[in-house]
Amino acid sequence: MKNCFYLMMILSLLSMTSHAQQALWGGPNLVSPEIHDNNTVTFRLQAPQASEVKLSGDWMPSEGWTPGSVAMEKTEDGIWRHTTDVLSSELYSYSFWVDGLRMPDPNNVHRIRDVATVTDVFLIGNGKADLYRVNDVPHGTVARRWYDSPGNEMNRRMTIYTPPGYENSKEKYPVLYLLHGMGGDEEAWIALGRTAQIMDNLIAQGKAKPMLVVMTNGNVAQQAAPGESAKGFYKPTMQLPHTMDGQMEATFPDVIQFIENNYRVKTDRKNRAIAGLSMGGFHSLHISRYYPETFNYVGLFSPAILPDENVKSQVYENFDETLKTQKENGLDLYWIGIGKTDFLYKFVEDYRKKLDEMDFPYQYHETEGGHTWTNWRDYLVEFVPQLF
Amino acid sequence: MKNCFYLMMILSLLSMTSHAQQALWGGPNLVSPEIHDNNTVTFRLQAPQASEVKLSGDWMPSEGWTPGSVAMEKTEDGIWRHTTDVLSSELYSYSFWVDGLRMPDPNNVHRIRDVATVTDVFLIGNGKADLYRVNDVPHGTVARRWYDSPGNEMNRRMTIYTPPGYENSKEKYPVLYLLHGMGGDEEAWIALGRTAQIMDNLIAQGKAKPMLVVMTNGNVAQQAAPGESAKGFYKPTMQLPHTMDGQMEATFPDVIQFIENNYRVKTDRKNRAIAGLSMGGFHSLHISRYYPETFNYVGLFSPAILPDENVKSQVYENFDETLKTQKENGLDLYWIGIGKTDFLYKFVEDYRKKLDEMDFPYQYHETEGGHTWTNWRDYLVEFVPQLF
Repeated sequence: MKNCFYLMMILSLLSMTSHAQQALWGGPNLVSPEIHDNNTVTFRLQAPQASEVKLSGDWMPSEGWTPGSVAMEKTEDGIWRHTTDVLSSELYSYSFWVDGLRMPDPNNVHRIRDVATVTDVFLIGNGKADLYRVNDVPHGTVARRWYDSPGNEMNRRMTIYTPPGYENSKEKYPVLYLLHGMGGDEEAWIALGRTAQIMDNLIAQGKAKPMLVVMTNGNVAQQAAPGESAKGFYKPTMQLPHTMDGQMEATFPDVIQFIENNYRVKTDRKNRAIAGLSMGGFHSLHISRYYPETFNYVGLFSPAILPDENVKSQVYENFDETLKTQKENGLDLYWIGIGKTDFLYKFVEDYRKKLDEMDFPYQYHETEGGHTWTNWRDYLVEFVPQLF
Repeated sequence: MKNCFYLMMILSLLSMTSHAQQALWGGPNLVSPEIHDNNTVTFRLQAPQASEVKLSGDWMPSEGWTPGSVAMEKTEDGIWRHTTDVLSSELYSYSFWVDGLRMPDPNNVHRIRDVATVTDVFLIGNGKADLYRVNDVPHGTVARRWYDSPGNEMNRRMTIYTPPGYENSKEKYPVLYLLHGMGGDEEAWIALGRTAQIMDNLIAQGKAKPMLVVMTNGNVAQQAAPGESAKGFYKPTMQLPHTMDGQMEATFPDVIQFIENNYRVKTDRKNRAIAGLSMGGFHSLHISRYYPETFNYVGLFSPAILPDENVKSQVYENFDETLKTQKENGLDLYWIGIGKTDFLYKFVEDYRKKLDEMDFPYQYHETEGGHTWTNWRDYLVEFVPQLF
């Protein structure tokens, strides 16, 4: 082991001091976050020159429009500390605020981008978030693959989850198409949504059928996520054209055709599901209605149902008629989930009235909370076991 | 478009103020880094309360063991600025130092982890780094897939690049096994190494043959990268057992067998290459020597050749004899690359003497610089066109 030890010594030394060699700038050596056995969490930041350090986390109640935060306490060693109360099982996001400047925890390398914001994450287990963990169960394969979209005259990128055993089976599988929200992309559900972990775990527990999950990029003006197309490393924004003007929905058959031509999947309506969050819920609603013989399962997670007659697209015409056709075709599940404090609550309420008036059967799942990934992971876990 | 505009307004407002809704905290609205047409770059950070802000980037000469840095200038608006000289084409890493605290650029969401350090990146094109860009060329597929390693009694994770057209072809492809350095994992070559982009671009230019690139995890004590196994979100370290004690090399046939049983690949020596950086160069050296009929192409990128007779493993026994066998078997390329200021230079020099003494033919590529990803990307670009 001496040679190994020798190299480790050299590299450890280098990593603390120089970036002329590998492993830039070195890591600080504090433990943060430290998750205690009782599910309290201690955060630490070495910032001897700072005057004020706050911790802001998505488990803290927000005060009106201001995100919740708590002052950290400085000790003589220049380290700021805070220990939380007991936290329930969840995947949490947090940041430090050092003299008014938001920064990540330098001792935590696990960060996830949500649109243009990168936050640190940690997970409290022994509860529902165990489904978001990588557990010792068979794992599916996650592929980033490019496909041709003639409708958008573009090659585009998608993320595809194939279940454990897919590659060595002759079986055909059903498919869930899973759509992101505004500002998101084909990385959103796999990163923030923990889709691969949720699917692996639900399948291992016998709660979900093995299926493909196809996570597309719903911004049809772009080929791929920021950094993953010829546009290079740019900062993502919410403001993208053609996201809610019918173009995405009209060209969605390009995706289905690609999957059905390239994967060993079942190609009938009974074996196709579509679901999405926020804008992706809007897309799922319209795609499933506009192509009313395509999907047997529909999931609207905090859907951005914002009817507007000024948008000119064939997709949004004949809303009531196509919804009626969808109802008459029959489908096994039309699932709607929304949080009580979601800013879209009222729009969903109005849509439910419409459905009620036409006796369109649906399953309604109202939860605490708002327009959050916490809810969307929960909704996925509720929705997926009911498929196929 | 009104409904789209409406949702954007709501979400933009939320994103600046609240994380009771979609977890955003809001992004600052500066442009940083701003890459000018003349390849100078302006960095900006809004930090009105800070007393001193420095910029540290891997294009700056380091002073001894101290990474290079430059003071940023504060203007009345509380924004700190720095504009670089003209930079040559490269993928660069950088960080800010605010009152002694390293932090990322809040306006840049493109960050890459190198072992336990996360840095911001940006790319200067119109030169060699155009190979690291996503260009408008056919793209291969990148899959994260689990395989069984009986030799390690473990399911393990790997990253597999299949070239454009693989899925719709009946052709069999050659395979490059590409190994990371100490502290790295199956994410290193795809993230820092830009392997998918380099391969897509070299193949599109007709400079490389279509091939699979298999990026394994060379730390056989672990199943997968930090955050990707049942160990959860932990901070990576250099200190891992069984990295240079023969175990990794001895069990490497598990990888080859998995690939050859599961992919449409050519299975003869002429169609197998192995290369690695630092510890991965050490691994490539030993695997190709210990299994001397397996690889026709070997690449040692800044290899950590640290002979030590105290390590007891069958893999490291009979070094000279197996090297002789490898030579006698003949191989089309034995490629060694190292930077003039690499701390491993002397070890590589000694190894070259050994090879010279036994008339072992090899191609030697000496470059400027040290033990850096800049060099390893260059080496990959030099090496790959010579394969198959």
